[in-house]
Amino acid sequence: MSKEANNFLVAQSGGPSMVINQSLVGAVLAAAEDKRVGAIYGARHGIRGILDGDTIDLRDVSRERLERIAATPSSALGSVRMKPTPEDCARIFARLRELGVRWFLYIGGNDSAETADIIGREAEKAGEELVCFHVPKTIDNDLRENDHTPGFGSAARFVASAFIGDDLDNRALGGVKINIVMGRNAGFLTAASALARRAPGDGPHLIYLPERPFSAKRFADDVMRCIERHGRCVVAVSEGIADENGVLIASQFSNERDSHGNLQLGGSGALGDALAALLKRETDGAVKRVRADTFGYLQRSFPGIASAVDQEEARKAGIAAFEAAVSGKWRSGSIAIRRKKGKKYAVTFDVVPLRSVAKETRSMPDDFIAENGHDVTDAFLAYARPLVGELPVKAMLSGIGR
Amino acid sequence: MSKEANNFLVAQSGGPSMVINQSLVGAVLAAAEDKRVGAIYGARHGIRGILDGDTIDLRDVSRERLERIAATPSSALGSVRMKPTPEDCARIFARLRELGVRWFLYIGGNDSAETADIIGREAEKAGEELVCFHVPKTIDNDLRENDHTPGFGSAARFVASAFIGDDLDNRALGGVKINIVMGRNAGFLTAASALARRAPGDGPHLIYLPERPFSAKRFADDVMRCIERHGRCVVAVSEGIADENGVLIASQFSNERDSHGNLQLGGSGALGDALAALLKRETDGAVKRVRADTFGYLQRSFPGIASAVDQEEARKAGIAAFEAAVSGKWRSGSIAIRRKKGKKYAVTFDVVPLRSVAKETRSMPDDFIAENGHDVTDAFLAYARPLVGELPVKAMLSGIGR
Repeated sequence: MSKEANNFLVAQSGGPSMVINQSLVGAVLAAAEDKRVGAIYGARHGIRGILDGDTIDLRDVSRERLERIAATPSSALGSVRMKPTPEDCARIFARLRELGVRWFLYIGGNDSAETADIIGREAEKAGEELVCFHVPKTIDNDLRENDHTPGFGSAARFVASAFIGDDLDNRALGGVKINIVMGRNAGFLTAASALARRAPGDGPHLIYLPERPFSAKRFADDVMRCIERHGRCVVAVSEGIADENGVLIASQFSNERDSHGNLQLGGSGALGDALAALLKRETDGAVKRVRADTFGYLQRSFPGIASAVDQEEARKAGIAAFEAAVSGKWRSGSIAIRRKKGKKYAVTFDVVPLRSVAKETRSMPDDFIAENGHDVTDAFLAYARPLVGELPVKAMLSGIGR
Repeated sequence: MSKEANNFLVAQSGGPSMVINQSLVGAVLAAAEDKRVGAIYGARHGIRGILDGDTIDLRDVSRERLERIAATPSSALGSVRMKPTPEDCARIFARLRELGVRWFLYIGGNDSAETADIIGREAEKAGEELVCFHVPKTIDNDLRENDHTPGFGSAARFVASAFIGDDLDNRALGGVKINIVMGRNAGFLTAASALARRAPGDGPHLIYLPERPFSAKRFADDVMRCIERHGRCVVAVSEGIADENGVLIASQFSNERDSHGNLQLGGSGALGDALAALLKRETDGAVKRVRADTFGYLQRSFPGIASAVDQEEARKAGIAAFEAAVSGKWRSGSIAIRRKKGKKYAVTFDVVPLRSVAKETRSMPDDFIAENGHDVTDAFLAYARPLVGELPVKAMLSGIGR
């Protein structure tokens, strides 16, 4: 290894979250205190910034400013959705050699882990002395190997808070309210809506997850039964719901795909509107006041709502990835958050192979999903509560059906 | 007047807000301390609860619980959208006589003021000794006579916060982001998105208000120019935008109306999706990544985001309305919030005639709207800032076009 190659480079990729900057700042501050590390670079907009020579020196950034960045949602370095070709990798290695980079950290979800895995494997093939680590991040909570991922707790906190407010709103004026929640492959974030419930009769009354086939007929029946019982109905629906053949319901309304082949789900209200129309149709007009909101990008970007546990873990995941990278023990890897056994909530940050988290995702385990297919279990609530933290209190005097 | 008629009844009407319960609790606590007042009733779901005999005794509710209710979004008594007929009024008077109610308070927006006005005038015609007061509430901020209305500051705080996060998100991944903001007749809430800006280049870059005719062609041109300049574009659009003939753009996607004749605007993502499609079409595919979110009911119901000034003023408006009602000086009226002249922000709570705030609404004054028709002026920012309060800090390292 060349004597100069003691520099560190970090970048962010994929959808931003409320705490991805905690991971960035955790890694940067750990690197700044490590005598083995020379320069600390940040590449703007992920590997695109490496390819374009768009990097900045993070040693120039004051600690005070870094702490403000850590508390800011979105990806402070900018992000990208880009799957590198072998040719891209060769150009990336040339750029990293120029910069004297020995340790490379990529913060993101399963697609970003795939990118890191591709780079790591191409580096090994090419005989590059690059150490390539991935830091987990995804509000969808669908990374394999992890008990949960940084970003999820805060997004779940937004979703649960939103449902608290929206259920109160529905109590006041009645009818059916459908809220579309993010989560491409896994229902964790939609399931977190259940944390909004405090008392019998509280919504969401129905929760539809990608893990169970969605049927229009059953949906309409469920809603009618809920109205009979509660006089109103608040529904949580994952953007990733699919029919019994696994075809995304949303695929009827969108055909835009990113470079990893994913269908565009966010940034459109079409699924919610379609479900509202379906409900009026299937119930033959018996259900009158139906409204649909799509929570959209606010779920990953709303400032000031991040969960304390999530912030802390995101920072520690960044530190752990940096420490694993410079330890010399691994050529590549990712950090997985595992929950310790025992009553008190505690986690470990373990090193796992990149390919064990790359590309493929995980779904909600069966014991988190209620038998009826449109709710969660107490096991899920116990799982999610410590990640989300305390939620706002509330009190009402009245409500339809109470 | 019969000796027994010394009871007080309060109810809530129209769209909920984050602080409408502050007005309720302000009035109830003031009534509880007033020796002239006998029973304190709350009618559930507005005048519907009076008609249905669905009232509760609010003296039974502990002060501690009332304070929790005050801090809870939505209408704690439940709400209704109902314009009473003369027959409804006669039945309402019969019920209120049974209950010995002398003072009636109705908390809501312009439609609720119209309801209070109808009840007040019918009461006078019928020789009822009922005093009928209205407490202002609307996130749209479109009540006449008022400098601003309870509910607006908190909804504006949600909108400004959401744009801070969403602009950071857009910085990370680029493209065009359209956010649809509530506001049927007035652009105040959409305009509040401008408070999200802190530094040059910050979004929202374009703001479309109901007060200026919307043109698809001009919209597409504005966005293209913004992308040339900033490499990205964040757009705030009011749900109430209309073409040069005053026809709501959203009317192409909805024909549902409430009892006051208002078109359904909320609870659908159709307008945002249509603008996104329009943009791709009008720019001939030159604009690629376009996303649209509709903030929806979260703007009026999200817990924990209420503005401190708004909470305080909502409470004081409730107290002022109660005090005006029991003063014996007026048969009916509403409370208007007026801003005092001078550098330091301060307001007064004045009694105004019900018909001066009922039914008709007000729009943004011209000096709050920029010459170019797609932005606000510094005068608007100076107007809105004290109502919204401090917003979250933020810091970035990078962004498209910066």
